[in-house]
Amino acid sequence: MNVEIITIGDEILIGQIVDTNSAWMATELNSIGIKVVQITSVSDSAAHLTEALDNAAKRANVVLMTGGLGPTKDDLTKKALCNYFQRNLVLHESTLQHVTNFFNKRGLGLTQLNHDQAMVIDGCEVLFNECGTAPGMWMEHEGVIFVSMPGVPFEMKGLMETSVLPKLAARSGMQKIVHKTILTFGIGESFLADKIEAWENELPSSIKLAYLPSPGQVRLRLTAVGNNEMILYEAISKAVGELLVVIPEYIFGFDNDTLASVVGKLLMKKGSTVASAESCTGGNIAHEITSIPGCSRWFQGSVVAYSNVVKMNMLGVEEEILERHGAVSELVACQMAEGARKRLQTDYAIATTGIAGPDGGTVAKPVGTVWIAVAGPNGTVTEKFSFANNRERNIIRSTQAALNLLRLYLLKE
Amino acid sequence: MNVEIITIGDEILIGQIVDTNSAWMATELNSIGIKVVQITSVSDSAAHLTEALDNAAKRANVVLMTGGLGPTKDDLTKKALCNYFQRNLVLHESTLQHVTNFFNKRGLGLTQLNHDQAMVIDGCEVLFNECGTAPGMWMEHEGVIFVSMPGVPFEMKGLMETSVLPKLAARSGMQKIVHKTILTFGIGESFLADKIEAWENELPSSIKLAYLPSPGQVRLRLTAVGNNEMILYEAISKAVGELLVVIPEYIFGFDNDTLASVVGKLLMKKGSTVASAESCTGGNIAHEITSIPGCSRWFQGSVVAYSNVVKMNMLGVEEEILERHGAVSELVACQMAEGARKRLQTDYAIATTGIAGPDGGTVAKPVGTVWIAVAGPNGTVTEKFSFANNRERNIIRSTQAALNLLRLYLLKE
Repeated sequence: MNVEIITIGDEILIGQIVDTNSAWMATELNSIGIKVVQITSVSDSAAHLTEALDNAAKRANVVLMTGGLGPTKDDLTKKALCNYFQRNLVLHESTLQHVTNFFNKRGLGLTQLNHDQAMVIDGCEVLFNECGTAPGMWMEHEGVIFVSMPGVPFEMKGLMETSVLPKLAARSGMQKIVHKTILTFGIGESFLADKIEAWENELPSSIKLAYLPSPGQVRLRLTAVGNNEMILYEAISKAVGELLVVIPEYIFGFDNDTLASVVGKLLMKKGSTVASAESCTGGNIAHEITSIPGCSRWFQGSVVAYSNVVKMNMLGVEEEILERHGAVSELVACQMAEGARKRLQTDYAIATTGIAGPDGGTVAKPVGTVWIAVAGPNGTVTEKFSFANNRERNIIRSTQAALNLLRLYLLKE
Repeated sequence: MNVEIITIGDEILIGQIVDTNSAWMATELNSIGIKVVQITSVSDSAAHLTEALDNAAKRANVVLMTGGLGPTKDDLTKKALCNYFQRNLVLHESTLQHVTNFFNKRGLGLTQLNHDQAMVIDGCEVLFNECGTAPGMWMEHEGVIFVSMPGVPFEMKGLMETSVLPKLAARSGMQKIVHKTILTFGIGESFLADKIEAWENELPSSIKLAYLPSPGQVRLRLTAVGNNEMILYEAISKAVGELLVVIPEYIFGFDNDTLASVVGKLLMKKGSTVASAESCTGGNIAHEITSIPGCSRWFQGSVVAYSNVVKMNMLGVEEEILERHGAVSELVACQMAEGARKRLQTDYAIATTGIAGPDGGTVAKPVGTVWIAVAGPNGTVTEKFSFANNRERNIIRSTQAALNLLRLYLLKE
């Protein structure tokens, strides 16, 4: 069973909204073993939608549409579908009842536009939309299933969860899909590919590998397809186990882990806490950590020491060290980490000091020069990094490098 | 001139990443008067890409592709394009030089995979990618322009801004387009629409208005299209001037301003400095501010006081106040702001304390309860907010509210 998703609406084509519906639908469909072959975004035009439906029906046996069901006149999905299937619109009594209640509960009467929400394509199966007024419609035509849903994300999700996914799962039969994503840090895509070439070539043909790079990280996604879910899980877990032997130093987690969440798990296991002292990362380490619900169990806080005055007053960095070595130096990074650990009363602390750019670089310390320190019960470790010219990326890369240095420190203990 | 966007990669079709590239590209293309007719996401399959190219070339005279240019073997865009255009791959010397420098600067040698990044389609115009190793390629074939770019967002954006958009703008002919975006804060889309209805109805027909909502903010984009750029600028600036009279209290800036950059400009005009003391925002205020190049002229630092110990030790919040009123209270917000102003030696300080969620709420203080304080030479002001249940949004909304409270404080002086 192959699915094509068609999203309908000018607002996507002018970039006013990002199409998050498709990724959500694709994830859900994959989880029940159904593959998405194409995602197509078309304008609010009957001719364009008709063309997209024709093409989709050649590639897929299920076509899921979202959008174009609203009451205003720029939405014309229903009329275009009637034309495509050569059917008429008919009144659906129980939908009319639902729409009437929907507005009455809000103290509003029914306009003609609201009333028209209860008109559906003759012969379709109406899918009840408990979150809104436009119903879903399920049609079968020349061996292909067509489903029309509203584009409002929570209405679409409600219809998918209560109607569309269960019906498709029941139809799809036996094929199962199992994914596992391995998260690596600190090695570029091409170097990683070289290192794991032999392992990659030995992968069974039922497993596909994809490289997904982002700043500082490469995710490796394994996908196994087959009839027996148990066998797929075993094949994937064998492949992961073998990879862990090949590149143990680069793998920091799996699936939805982040460097911050992995560090959090390690700290919770020890019953320990951490703080940060941030110059060039400017609070981004604290922000990454505090994006994780429940981080207050292991994160105490941070001093964003952007000026030298704050480095001295709040972290106890010595004026003489600042003058002799400069703010971007190994010793200042050490004193920042040690000061944060002491004053914020934590077991560990991470510190960053560097030149994020675009200005402020010198020949000796160009933009992108960053010193990172981790202080803990077994002393303080440091590392120097040389990133590039982009301020935003330097902040992200420094944040990741600092979290990773702490991760390695914790693992070595 | 019509554009079709094709995004290439299984990671989109399995829902692992949301396609944000297309919306960004569509917005930029629209801003230079070029329409996007369809967005298509296809798999890492040569046959599928070829089919999409064939169909796109029927609808559009420009086809912009992203993705599938990485060095590893799951990326096959280049080979598929060679096949489609019946051309070969050839070595591009200056790209090879760039790739070699790119890795040498990082102390790394060149692998075969890196070397292959410098292979381009024979006869294409190579677009220099200063942010990465895979170059863009511009090809013209039977009257249609095809452009291939990497899928990594910042590499694609770099190529679009430096090469693709200027080239397309030069081709697209004579019509001039002038945009102006007015940034509003603190009023919802439908209420804003009500307030400015009369103004909107009086807009000349040459000016189009779009509402662009995001959490806490609504951007109003005015677009004027015509032959005489001077007249367009005058029409837009007249409309903006009239709107400033209608809703002065909601407008905080224009175009690429942010609340943080506007606050920075106000502080620099006064020659003053600011610090933050952050509990529920967890460093995000500092992060927003330090994303602005040159902010060290007015930003000293922040104390992320996630635990009560840090609130007491680093900001001087009194234990008795914490016990009697709780960490999420007006008095604690005041003491945090005043403590940060004193200890970080700044003219102003902003503080946040609240319950970001998803847990930690009570009947009296549900998730989303946030107290914000601004301390300055004219005393301390506070405001209470009641946001909703989403942790990520609560952090963003609290950050914006805090920056806006400081903005209003500075304006009133």
